[in-house]
Amino acid sequence: MSDSKVSLFEVGPRDGLQNETRILPLAEKLDLISALSRAGIRKLEAGAFVRADRVPQMADSEAVQDGLLASGLAGDFYFLVPNRKGLARAIEKGVKHIAVFTAVSEEFNRKNIGMGVEDSFREIEAVVTEARSANIRVRGYVSTVFGCPFQGRIDPKQAIGVIERMAALPVEEVSVGDTIGVAAPRGVSEVFEPLIRNAGAGRYAAHFHDTRGTALSNAVRALELGVRTFDSSVSGLGGCPFAPGASGNLATEDLVYFLKENGMETGVDYRALCETGARLSQLMGYARPVSRALQAYLAHCTRNSVWDS
Amino acid sequence: MSDSKVSLFEVGPRDGLQNETRILPLAEKLDLISALSRAGIRKLEAGAFVRADRVPQMADSEAVQDGLLASGLAGDFYFLVPNRKGLARAIEKGVKHIAVFTAVSEEFNRKNIGMGVEDSFREIEAVVTEARSANIRVRGYVSTVFGCPFQGRIDPKQAIGVIERMAALPVEEVSVGDTIGVAAPRGVSEVFEPLIRNAGAGRYAAHFHDTRGTALSNAVRALELGVRTFDSSVSGLGGCPFAPGASGNLATEDLVYFLKENGMETGVDYRALCETGARLSQLMGYARPVSRALQAYLAHCTRNSVWDS
Repeated sequence: MSDSKVSLFEVGPRDGLQNETRILPLAEKLDLISALSRAGIRKLEAGAFVRADRVPQMADSEAVQDGLLASGLAGDFYFLVPNRKGLARAIEKGVKHIAVFTAVSEEFNRKNIGMGVEDSFREIEAVVTEARSANIRVRGYVSTVFGCPFQGRIDPKQAIGVIERMAALPVEEVSVGDTIGVAAPRGVSEVFEPLIRNAGAGRYAAHFHDTRGTALSNAVRALELGVRTFDSSVSGLGGCPFAPGASGNLATEDLVYFLKENGMETGVDYRALCETGARLSQLMGYARPVSRALQAYLAHCTRNSVWDS
Repeated sequence: MSDSKVSLFEVGPRDGLQNETRILPLAEKLDLISALSRAGIRKLEAGAFVRADRVPQMADSEAVQDGLLASGLAGDFYFLVPNRKGLARAIEKGVKHIAVFTAVSEEFNRKNIGMGVEDSFREIEAVVTEARSANIRVRGYVSTVFGCPFQGRIDPKQAIGVIERMAALPVEEVSVGDTIGVAAPRGVSEVFEPLIRNAGAGRYAAHFHDTRGTALSNAVRALELGVRTFDSSVSGLGGCPFAPGASGNLATEDLVYFLKENGMETGVDYRALCETGARLSQLMGYARPVSRALQAYLAHCTRNSVWDS
């Protein structure tokens, strides 16, 4: 991959929608994924095989996969799989890409998945082994890398230990997550420099949240260190589950604007992305778009200008 | 100045308020400046000696200066002065710090101040000469450095020419402005690297707008290049005059969060700043704070947490 090529990993249809109160109906969810694919997004998290009673936003994941298979859309569509039960559902539906996850923070893991880091790895290892033998590709997530809503600051050494344990599994890459959006570039260096020194930048993706406005500042540092895969959520879908009223996932529109103005190639049609984001913001009932780039795009004065294409 | 020390230049009470439709009454404006000063802000733009019929938000600038003199507040308080007439008013009121401005874009200057770049420098040179002989310190602004709402992209060479012309005057520093918030780090390097090579980083301040979410990403690059003075506006006051509904000035809360988490010293009490920003957001009738860091601060889950002090 050339140094100016960046791979985007879109998490809006899963990580984003899962954390919205409004449930997007199946047809609109498929429309969204289709629009994102047509805009050039090639890797996308489409659903999760989790308990429908606990996560109603993801209850239609089987139907999403059916729709995607029928659509023939271009792209790799990932489904989150928390355990072997979820994996069985994924295999049953012919899913080819899954994601597994854990967190650095013991307390976060206990509250989120009801087990500690050690037990979560036991489950993940079983899932990954079975998935690989079924020829399913796996992405690993590690969350609360820079801070935890319950435990506070996270020691970079501890974070690196958990991330490298995930990276040692046969996963395609490990997405390093600033789950509550507290990181600044200094922390990004502290975590990513040793990781990259040991295993190369290609082993990692950066998953930044914009809760305190620092997501793109962290992306600058990650790019400088060689990271070329970034997670983001169209329209900033999802908010911050730990701080209602605050921003969460980095908005894909902001990320793509930033990358294109830095001369990086994403393969994404910025205008098509913004139009998709605008429709979605309306559907979700946002008073105004979360993405600043999208706000600017919609503010007309620069529509059709040099910065909007 | 140590390498980790950053100087903040607060523009909310002038650049910010001037671009708000709601006019903040004198008493509240003085309260705001006082709160900012008590929070540790040492350089602040307090008003403008412009035509009251054209800029009613600044009509009380004489009274602001009277109030500041009476208050004995710590800090350098700047007043924008567009011409010799404005300077006469500043001198009359005992102002000790003024700011002068021009833009790189010919068309922007014509629309903003009714004259081109060349004529604007003639006026600025007269103002600076007279101000210096009255022992008044002068700050220079150059706007539309990266893009113009009318002309589009700006050639970095052209921008550097105008900025260096301003820097050749006896001004304390030149604030390099991304007036419509289109810049990304690549552009920051293109403009700041030659400037700093020629005159040193101490000659320049960075004035970024967050219209497309890139302000702090640009700050990362500017910091890496050695810039240690940054302009910002409390609560992101001012919006984007050229794109109603979009964000404008970088919010001081976002900047301070970013700097403190990078281990930089600003001398600002983050909690006091956020409390000031929260009151101001209410006063201005914002549906929700523009600053993401302030949104997170107010979202309670992290209040009193390690990240909020």
